[in-house]
Amino acid sequence: MSLSEFQIIKKFFTSCFSAAVPAKLGIGDDCALIDVPPEMHVAVSTDTLVEGVHFLENSDPYLLGHKALAVNLSDLAAMGAKPAWVSMALTIPKVDEKWLSAFSDGFFQLAQKYKIQLIGGDTTRGPLAISLTVMGLLPSGKGLKRSGAKIGDGVYVTGKMGSAGLGLKKAVANSVNPSDVDLMRYLQPEPCVDAGLNLLGKATSCIDVSDGLAADLSHILKASKVGAILEHASLPMSLSVKENIEMRGDWQWPYSSGDDYQLCFTMPETLESCFNTSAWDEIENPIRIGRVVAEPGLVLQYNGEQVVYSSGGYEHFK
Amino acid sequence: MSLSEFQIIKKFFTSCFSAAVPAKLGIGDDCALIDVPPEMHVAVSTDTLVEGVHFLENSDPYLLGHKALAVNLSDLAAMGAKPAWVSMALTIPKVDEKWLSAFSDGFFQLAQKYKIQLIGGDTTRGPLAISLTVMGLLPSGKGLKRSGAKIGDGVYVTGKMGSAGLGLKKAVANSVNPSDVDLMRYLQPEPCVDAGLNLLGKATSCIDVSDGLAADLSHILKASKVGAILEHASLPMSLSVKENIEMRGDWQWPYSSGDDYQLCFTMPETLESCFNTSAWDEIENPIRIGRVVAEPGLVLQYNGEQVVYSSGGYEHFK
Repeated sequence: MSLSEFQIIKKFFTSCFSAAVPAKLGIGDDCALIDVPPEMHVAVSTDTLVEGVHFLENSDPYLLGHKALAVNLSDLAAMGAKPAWVSMALTIPKVDEKWLSAFSDGFFQLAQKYKIQLIGGDTTRGPLAISLTVMGLLPSGKGLKRSGAKIGDGVYVTGKMGSAGLGLKKAVANSVNPSDVDLMRYLQPEPCVDAGLNLLGKATSCIDVSDGLAADLSHILKASKVGAILEHASLPMSLSVKENIEMRGDWQWPYSSGDDYQLCFTMPETLESCFNTSAWDEIENPIRIGRVVAEPGLVLQYNGEQVVYSSGGYEHFK
Repeated sequence: MSLSEFQIIKKFFTSCFSAAVPAKLGIGDDCALIDVPPEMHVAVSTDTLVEGVHFLENSDPYLLGHKALAVNLSDLAAMGAKPAWVSMALTIPKVDEKWLSAFSDGFFQLAQKYKIQLIGGDTTRGPLAISLTVMGLLPSGKGLKRSGAKIGDGVYVTGKMGSAGLGLKKAVANSVNPSDVDLMRYLQPEPCVDAGLNLLGKATSCIDVSDGLAADLSHILKASKVGAILEHASLPMSLSVKENIEMRGDWQWPYSSGDDYQLCFTMPETLESCFNTSAWDEIENPIRIGRVVAEPGLVLQYNGEQVVYSSGGYEHFK
């Protein structure tokens, strides 16, 4: 006999680690109840992954559980918020206990790392999809918005661009090699939560790179009413990505490739010394890839020439 | 050309009414930012509607926009929380502007009634599904949990049972008559938000009837470690429901029929005088249908005989 919704929650979605900010009332009532510490904002974000759209059919459930939470934590990271609570809307075609067990393992492995508490949700029957709403905490008055970039600021990314996009190509070609760095950047992205926390009060704007660097940076530029010039030679890329774009003769590809879940941010260059503090000891240092300018739009400098970037990143309805 | 995700949000999901508790930062950044008034809990709940599972294919989008929010507000009502914010994960197979316009009209019509603010979400491509996460506010220390029912309390419902279930039968039979009360109870349920607020500090336990009265009341009984005896003659039903169950010879059906979104709660009978206060002027008075007893389980009294109720309500995976 198949498990009921309540049995599924009890068996697979009850965790035992200590949450950073335990809810007053967790899973099992009509609502969860949370208490927000005084002088704190709550940052809220929702991200959905749909089978066949955001991930391939028959994806590994452990990696999927990780990724569903990772892409949501990435939004908290981009605001500089500390993860606190998450609500899960899980839609599954049937009750497959092996699948559910692996999915919840992947989810809770990452949840435990950031001590984020699953406080509720809804488990329904239907085409496979995972929609999470994450909540994080921020000191009052703080927050890495998209709208604060200033002319003269440096433009930075927290890590290599294009790896996840190349990983997707490999996944489509049925690679399952867990030691392939690009593939794993696509299948199991690591959210830049600690980098986001470190940047609070320093970065003037921030976004996570989900739809492609150019499209996401353009949101910052538009919200901040500025432009940017990027120096292609400064863009951090793995050797495999460099080889791939050379082979295909498409140097602009890392700017439109999505799913990297690195942070892109702007900051006065004078603050770069903060990268030398102990807060960054265990995190890769961000790389400056360009600067904010008055002229709207995004310009790429490549081999001494300037190209105005025009096409966007990944958009769901185009 | 099809609209992008950003254009969809701008065109269809930007509201202009005043929210009860305006967010510090709304739609358009990586996260929304909210400030919780001091001495308040936040109640959080998530409910998903999937096409073909929770609503029929080709359902009217205006009514669907209403219902998606209504079933979520119903969870806040069952906790006695005042609606404040909502995040929407909308998955649609294609961009149909007529559909989106009607859907958002239905959603915002109800949102405006309760001044709940849409603070963000995710719009993705895929099989039609709507998952909302609602947030409401409660005075610290308050909240209508499932676990507080006491022996001797009365058991109450806020309105008629079985109407939405009969409405579903009519919808399946292709009825579209907007003056059919049962059909509209199914298609456009009204959440009992004000009743929930009135019951705060009075009801000892509360739940909203989504899966069927027996199944939902059983959650209260289990969480409170008590039982209940219901008097069938007291159960409020519409004439059409009474006729229908008489015709089919199935008097137990209103106990397993779902989707009514009334509240079922327990309360000391001595507090019934509160129903005569002005707070209940514009709301139907709750009906006492039974009492809480020590013996676990749910017993139905019908024509002088006692039946132990055993089968459950609607469960997604059975």
